[in-house]
Amino acid sequence: MSSNSFGKLFTVTTFGESHGPAIGGVVDGCPPGLPLEPAMFLHDLERRATGRSRHTSQRHEADEVEILSGVYEGRTTGTPIALLIRNTDARSKDYAAIAQTFRPGHADYTYWHKYGIRDPRGGGRASARETTVRVAAGVIAKAWLARRHGVRVRGYLAQLGELVPKGFDWEAVEQNPFFWPHAAQVPELERYMDALRKSGDSVGARVNVVAEGVPPGWGEPVYGKLDAELAAALMSINAVKGVEIGDGFAAVGQRGSEHRDELQMDGFTSNHAGGILGGISTGQPILASAAFKPTSSILIPGRSVDMEGHAVDVVTKGRHDPCVGIRATPIVEAMVALVLMDQALRHRAQCADVGDMAPRIA
Amino acid sequence: MSSNSFGKLFTVTTFGESHGPAIGGVVDGCPPGLPLEPAMFLHDLERRATGRSRHTSQRHEADEVEILSGVYEGRTTGTPIALLIRNTDARSKDYAAIAQTFRPGHADYTYWHKYGIRDPRGGGRASARETTVRVAAGVIAKAWLARRHGVRVRGYLAQLGELVPKGFDWEAVEQNPFFWPHAAQVPELERYMDALRKSGDSVGARVNVVAEGVPPGWGEPVYGKLDAELAAALMSINAVKGVEIGDGFAAVGQRGSEHRDELQMDGFTSNHAGGILGGISTGQPILASAAFKPTSSILIPGRSVDMEGHAVDVVTKGRHDPCVGIRATPIVEAMVALVLMDQALRHRAQCADVGDMAPRIA
Amino acid sequence: MSSNSFGKLFTVTTFGESHGPAIGGVVDGCPPGLPLEPAMFLHDLERRATGRSRHTSQRHEADEVEILSGVYEGRTTGTPIALLIRNTDARSKDYAAIAQTFRPGHADYTYWHKYGIRDPRGGGRASARETTVRVAAGVIAKAWLARRHGVRVRGYLAQLGELVPKGFDWEAVEQNPFFWPHAAQVPELERYMDALRKSGDSVGARVNVVAEGVPPGWGEPVYGKLDAELAAALMSINAVKGVEIGDGFAAVGQRGSEHRDELQMDGFTSNHAGGILGGISTGQPILASAAFKPTSSILIPGRSVDMEGHAVDVVTKGRHDPCVGIRATPIVEAMVALVLMDQALRHRAQCADVGDMAPRIA
Amino acid sequence: MSSNSFGKLFTVTTFGESHGPAIGGVVDGCPPGLPLEPAMFLHDLERRATGRSRHTSQRHEADEVEILSGVYEGRTTGTPIALLIRNTDARSKDYAAIAQTFRPGHADYTYWHKYGIRDPRGGGRASARETTVRVAAGVIAKAWLARRHGVRVRGYLAQLGELVPKGFDWEAVEQNPFFWPHAAQVPELERYMDALRKSGDSVGARVNVVAEGVPPGWGEPVYGKLDAELAAALMSINAVKGVEIGDGFAAVGQRGSEHRDELQMDGFTSNHAGGILGGISTGQPILASAAFKPTSSILIPGRSVDMEGHAVDVVTKGRHDPCVGIRATPIVEAMVALVLMDQALRHRAQCADVGDMAPRIA
Repeated sequence: MSSNSFGKLFTVTTFGESHGPAIGGVVDGCPPGLPLEPAMFLHDLERRATGRSRHTSQRHEADEVEILSGVYEGRTTGTPIALLIRNTDARSKDYAAIAQTFRPGHADYTYWHKYGIRDPRGGGRASARETTVRVAAGVIAKAWLARRHGVRVRGYLAQLGELVPKGFDWEAVEQNPFFWPHAAQVPELERYMDALRKSGDSVGARVNVVAEGVPPGWGEPVYGKLDAELAAALMSINAVKGVEIGDGFAAVGQRGSEHRDELQMDGFTSNHAGGILGGISTGQPILASAAFKPTSSILIPGRSVDMEGHAVDVVTKGRHDPCVGIRATPIVEAMVALVLMDQALRHRAQCADVGDMAPRIA
Repeated sequence: MSSNSFGKLFTVTTFGESHGPAIGGVVDGCPPGLPLEPAMFLHDLERRATGRSRHTSQRHEADEVEILSGVYEGRTTGTPIALLIRNTDARSKDYAAIAQTFRPGHADYTYWHKYGIRDPRGGGRASARETTVRVAAGVIAKAWLARRHGVRVRGYLAQLGELVPKGFDWEAVEQNPFFWPHAAQVPELERYMDALRKSGDSVGARVNVVAEGVPPGWGEPVYGKLDAELAAALMSINAVKGVEIGDGFAAVGQRGSEHRDELQMDGFTSNHAGGILGGISTGQPILASAAFKPTSSILIPGRSVDMEGHAVDVVTKGRHDPCVGIRATPIVEAMVALVLMDQALRHRAQCADVGDMAPRIA
Repeated sequence: MSSNSFGKLFTVTTFGESHGPAIGGVVDGCPPGLPLEPAMFLHDLERRATGRSRHTSQRHEADEVEILSGVYEGRTTGTPIALLIRNTDARSKDYAAIAQTFRPGHADYTYWHKYGIRDPRGGGRASARETTVRVAAGVIAKAWLARRHGVRVRGYLAQLGELVPKGFDWEAVEQNPFFWPHAAQVPELERYMDALRKSGDSVGARVNVVAEGVPPGWGEPVYGKLDAELAAALMSINAVKGVEIGDGFAAVGQRGSEHRDELQMDGFTSNHAGGILGGISTGQPILASAAFKPTSSILIPGRSVDMEGHAVDVVTKGRHDPCVGIRATPIVEAMVALVLMDQALRHRAQCADVGDMAPRIA
Repeated sequence: MSSNSFGKLFTVTTFGESHGPAIGGVVDGCPPGLPLEPAMFLHDLERRATGRSRHTSQRHEADEVEILSGVYEGRTTGTPIALLIRNTDARSKDYAAIAQTFRPGHADYTYWHKYGIRDPRGGGRASARETTVRVAAGVIAKAWLARRHGVRVRGYLAQLGELVPKGFDWEAVEQNPFFWPHAAQVPELERYMDALRKSGDSVGARVNVVAEGVPPGWGEPVYGKLDAELAAALMSINAVKGVEIGDGFAAVGQRGSEHRDELQMDGFTSNHAGGILGGISTGQPILASAAFKPTSSILIPGRSVDMEGHAVDVVTKGRHDPCVGIRATPIVEAMVALVLMDQALRHRAQCADVGDMAPRIA
């Protein structure tokens, strides 16, 4: 598979630069018969979009999805589904100044070394604009997972800089621009972000995702483990520097008697494993977490070099997020959904003949 | 690619169960002309082996590698290299008791759900015995990386339960059975492990790996990013629950002005990124870290159910590691080497024509 | 890789239905720096297009290629190149009559069985309209092969029904609407096709392709052999029923002393092998041939059944080619170019270190 | 996937050189629960083996298959099945003479150019000995196809040099060493082969294969078409120069009214298509055919060059088949079975939800 494609049987190929004419993708391997129409993309694209609050980038993209193929009379046909999203609010002149230099913390330097040429406008292919297509593809995966298996994939912001939630309520998550699970803290977050923006700096974040309803058996040992593919999926998102499944790094300090999840007739007694053992789902909720680094595009000058090898100071103007993790929640959900759908299809390919042979645990 | 294969151009396919007749693998895509002989496997297999100190499992495997193909007169020929390792010290009777039950924290339950059948002897395919083949394949990758690119991949134990290194010295790492980078702490670690073993419990660990000499440009955006593939590689190792690149989760609490690595004429001023930006290597050392959960095979009884659905207590006898993370260092190194070699080959496929066009930074 | 993608390192993913809003594709893995602009697609798309003579379908498509990504300031950047072609002359009403029935010799019946749903308009995804994108992707491959390796890929019509060329001249091929290599026969071909069209019937054809300038060494044994991939590439073209490399089926009746190509100091003495031995190119011209069946869409009624299971007679109206093989020459060339470029990239990934060690033969 | 692997979900990876210590392979993706034991390999390996009559090579290999993994208590477990076959009758000294030269018609020249190194003993990796593993893997695929879907895959020799069958009887095929479908001609074939052997020359052959019981719906448009994958599978077999599906090249001279298979209530009226339309199976028997070139290893001297670039005469001693096509029948069957099983698994991954919606035709 090429490196702009993701997934083995449910394969998403994306294309497009931040300031090119369009971004888009081809979703291949979707089973036939799934109801699909453009309106279905609106909710998650809106959740991911910039410009919806003062706490994110002020670029305003229409994010209108045109379905070019693979759907007939409102249902998928089993043929590739092409999605096209025109770029409508690119301001490439913001980037003229940095075309000859390398912004610290950005992919400018590495793209140049790899390819010897790069599209400097808005970060080109390395821009988080590409994740719009992931979210759109994730909408298809979420729809199939929900309809066929009753799976629900939901995420929330679990840390913003030093701040952590002091309570948890799924209801709250969708009612504030931070995907924060505790409503009472929202004013505090707003003040925190306002101060950050004024300082011209940025901050990191942690996003947690929970997938409920995944049956036991999904995941392919030993290199296509469900957790290994989730790790790749989340680490492939721009700015992610760490991934955890279940207890993650906290497991380092735990004892085996504490970490291992015991089984009783009515189910597991705990979920330290995050719903995955030996790379295969246990039937418990899948728990994954991603660490987002602070945005490198900040107003505080940074030292760098230009393409002639001279020392320069870089100030990143453009329109940027002071915390990329905020809008990342739907992206993380989408990547988890893509992995789950792919594994679901792979599972039935190989294991369709296996009945329910193990004792069911609630 | 099937899920028992790893890598796109340098592809390793492994096979074998813990207590089956043999384990082994096929290494496909190794360039021709690389010197290779069985003795080259000894060092890393010895480092990974059980039974070398009282702090690991007491299973004694010969781990003798037979090269079945792909090498002619001491050099690789470009054809697939098959490696065979006979199992010589399997004690399957230890497992008779658990053939009808599901050990908590193990893959027994999930394999049964997925496949409807499982080889219970020694954990079958889910056993860490499989990682022997990864280490052997990693030897080939390390040899090619060193010879062709001067790359060196080294790991060490960065945390054992609550204990963290109080100093750092690469020399120390290979001189104690823990791969611990600070010699003065070794007696403390021995006492810690002795006490743990007596308690019948186990503990988690963190392994860090550093790859030096990787040139800028390796890694394929956007789904074949170097960090994404490292994440999958490390998370695919038995018992790993978390992966970090560079600062990892610490980045969540950082500011952009702190995290971003600035560039000067003599190089980067820091390496928070862990040597990867936009999924592509920067030329700095690659830094990766993996969290290992505490072994689930402990002497303390755990609650479970059997295949008839009755509640049972499980005590895992067999011969197990009280801390799987200890022997994991060469496994982590091997997986990093496999990813790097694969990316190196992919890089020259697409970018062989790109000269050294960017300003070199020391 | 998904089944709407072709190629391992130079990967082409196509999408689109004959009468949907658009067709297109994503070309991933093209090395950076290749000059590319929309005008480069005109020549080959014009050669493949319908409606250029009375001997092909009278559908008139603009076949205007929009490059959506992967090109910056006239050069490829190494990121995915998305190509979009809007459908402009679809007459779906022609197909209303056959929405409930299965045209003999078409994919209607099989798509319905596979997917349970199908887009009946113009054959949907099974239409040869999809090959437009193959030709566009082939333009990129041809350009790279020519520029980087001096490779030239050319095809011609080698048989039309019972007619075979009575002479051979590359110059003639591009000067008649049949890609026929002997100019003197063109009037005969025109009469032949006129008579065929009047009869409401169709006829088969054979297309030969020659790739010159391929260096020795391309092709990967044993399942990625150059000839095996050419066979898959050509057989994947609509209506192809047979593929030959070199002497092909004629080799069945040959003796070894006749077939094997001997080597002398100034090169091979013959090319029965078609430029491939053991799945690897020899340095001689690559010779491949494809058999096209006669179009199934003819005016002569055919017996079939409808979706309710009743017997019906089918007359295919629409606008169809009386010989699909005629326009197939650029499609065959494109597929050969895609295979060669992919193998060229794969070769340098694995064998870049191999110098010119074998004795050169002119 | 690497080029020593075949298949997307049912993946066979082979390894081994003709005169190395062993050949073998890893079969990954076999569904769990299939009965499998070493004795099941005997029949097809015996059919493929050399030395069973005077008309094939006189190398006598035991071809004993050791199952190293993936089977527990006589059933597949869903984990990779490793197969090992030791080489027991390699006579490498026969090849000393040709280590420095390139045999005409062989892969010596091309392997040398590609890899810069080659194992000259017995043709190394390019030897047809590799096909032993294909046949073994094919046994697994045939067993699953028969048990799960009632599919039967059978082949026969359809042409030997100039000779064609004058009658057809499946019973006859397995009762003569030629897989010839007309018993009365066997004495003629024996005389033909005896004369050929005496002349020191070799001859080509055609093998046909028929797969019965394949349900409609297998095959993935547009690049994973069933016929495209069959073409790759057959063309990947040593010495194959052409592949046909259904009428193959005969379709070139046919009219559409003749070629298209009409449908009636009791089924198709003909099978010119060979059971495949639009790349998807129709439910009719799959018909495929492969052309084998005459062996290049003959006693008649051939001109060549050596590695120093001097002109030489080559006489191939060793032990060779005067017609490789004779023993190829089980190899062709195996490759067809591998393709069908892979497509069957892929079909149920994507289309498991599709019921029997189309009108059934007997």
